[in-house]
Amino acid sequence: MDAIQKQLLEAVAGLHEIPVGAYNIRANGKSEGRNSTEHIEITTREEGDGISIRIKDGTKKESVHIPVVMSQAGLQEVVYNDFYVGDNCDVTIIAGCGIHNGGDASSKHDGIHSFFIGKNSRVKYVEKHYGSGDGKGQRIMNPETIIEVGENSVMEMDTVQIKGVDSTKRMTRAKLLEGASLKVMERLMTHGTQDAESRFIVDMDGADSGANIISRSVAKDDSRQLFQSVLNGNAACSGHTECDAIIVGNAKISSIPEITANSSDAALIHEAAIGKIAGEQIVKLMTLGLTEEEAEAQIINGFLK
Amino acid sequence: MDAIQKQLLEAVAGLHEIPVGAYNIRANGKSEGRNSTEHIEITTREEGDGISIRIKDGTKKESVHIPVVMSQAGLQEVVYNDFYVGDNCDVTIIAGCGIHNGGDASSKHDGIHSFFIGKNSRVKYVEKHYGSGDGKGQRIMNPETIIEVGENSVMEMDTVQIKGVDSTKRMTRAKLLEGASLKVMERLMTHGTQDAESRFIVDMDGADSGANIISRSVAKDDSRQLFQSVLNGNAACSGHTECDAIIVGNAKISSIPEITANSSDAALIHEAAIGKIAGEQIVKLMTLGLTEEEAEAQIINGFLK
Repeated sequence: MDAIQKQLLEAVAGLHEIPVGAYNIRANGKSEGRNSTEHIEITTREEGDGISIRIKDGTKKESVHIPVVMSQAGLQEVVYNDFYVGDNCDVTIIAGCGIHNGGDASSKHDGIHSFFIGKNSRVKYVEKHYGSGDGKGQRIMNPETIIEVGENSVMEMDTVQIKGVDSTKRMTRAKLLEGASLKVMERLMTHGTQDAESRFIVDMDGADSGANIISRSVAKDDSRQLFQSVLNGNAACSGHTECDAIIVGNAKISSIPEITANSSDAALIHEAAIGKIAGEQIVKLMTLGLTEEEAEAQIINGFLK
Repeated sequence: MDAIQKQLLEAVAGLHEIPVGAYNIRANGKSEGRNSTEHIEITTREEGDGISIRIKDGTKKESVHIPVVMSQAGLQEVVYNDFYVGDNCDVTIIAGCGIHNGGDASSKHDGIHSFFIGKNSRVKYVEKHYGSGDGKGQRIMNPETIIEVGENSVMEMDTVQIKGVDSTKRMTRAKLLEGASLKVMERLMTHGTQDAESRFIVDMDGADSGANIISRSVAKDDSRQLFQSVLNGNAACSGHTECDAIIVGNAKISSIPEITANSSDAALIHEAAIGKIAGEQIVKLMTLGLTEEEAEAQIINGFLK
């Protein structure tokens, strides 16, 4: 890998070297390195571009790194990754995509990730998206995440779009079986003329299932954001969706939650607030010696932390 | 008016006799009585069925009653009422519709109410919907309310669907100019196989405009409800939308707010909760000697008050 690719790898996966455990590093459309372990097997997918990750029953405290880096301007790819997580597992999956575009043609990565999670398992899924490069070509990422959470299992998603992504359309669909739960923490920042859409559709089908979808976002300059979260309570379940957004400059933000109780034993809540940073917060930090820009940056960093 | 019509009139307008002030009573598709006053003129609309209500500048502490009662099964009507409210007014408008259907054909009242409100005025608009009769024919009411609130004026809407309305599609659109505000309190109860939809679209176009949309609803039996509230903040404004719903039996409720900040000086909040009555609330009232049904009824009455 070249210097730019290494830099992207660090930004999206925090990796300076080859990771411990199972991994698959994809660079400019090709596998740059792969490792399976005793409990986690990574193979090339039979149909379509991508990989299958099979995690055996009872696999605990293990991790899978599957970063994607693209430094070739104009590369466009659609990648399918399937995760089969057995029963009684406790694993962390670190995905992420970094695009450096120094050319005029758009670079695009569409990642379709499907999760089939067994019983009594816990999966933590971390995903970072990052773009760099001063080419006119756009850096586009459209992740689609499809999740089936098995009985009494927990799926925890932690997604961050750091900076530099010109356009993103995120779609996450989840189906929760009995006692299953989904926790999502999404953090998103857009600037310039960037455009970001994030949609969640969660079916709480099983008794005692639960979902908690939290989104925090900052839209600056002339950027535009749309957040949509659909929670369907089809059984005795509890669902909560929350979107807090800070708007700066001429940015535009829409928030559209949709909660539907199809069972009288479903308890659903949504809440959201969109607004700018309170003036007194800025003034307070400025009295401590910060410039207005530094004060704003500090507040935004704290909000997205 | 016959006994049934008088009963409907009492239910929707609290009227036992001819009201004080300006009024127009519509019964079975015809004007049953009308009165204009020095400041409030009611005339038959030139195009389409309905009336024009013109309220002069400076009209204070006056009221307009415009109830509609229908006791003839199978009657279907579309009525347009236009309200022109001058500057510096403070008026109360009491609308309402009662349908008694003892036959097999559906009765339907579609009321399209347009409000043009001047500057520095205050309008309180009260609307009750009620249905009775044991015919197989449906009682259907589709109110559409279109509001333009002028500079520094306040429109306050208080709407109640008491009971007996088989199907309703409510649509309220408002445009708020500088310093204008809209306050809505909607209360809705459905039972049996009733169906209710209520939509709000509010454009906060003027600086310092504000909207507060609150909906409280109870869905029982196999009834179905949809609540949608769209707040667009196009200037320095503040908007809040809230939907609290209680679900009983096999009823289904959806809540879809949509807040969009098109200005960084827009502050928007939405919140909603759907759930059933907490078991401990029922138990507490039962220990005081109420039956389970009485306890439930009392909690629902308190919630909708």
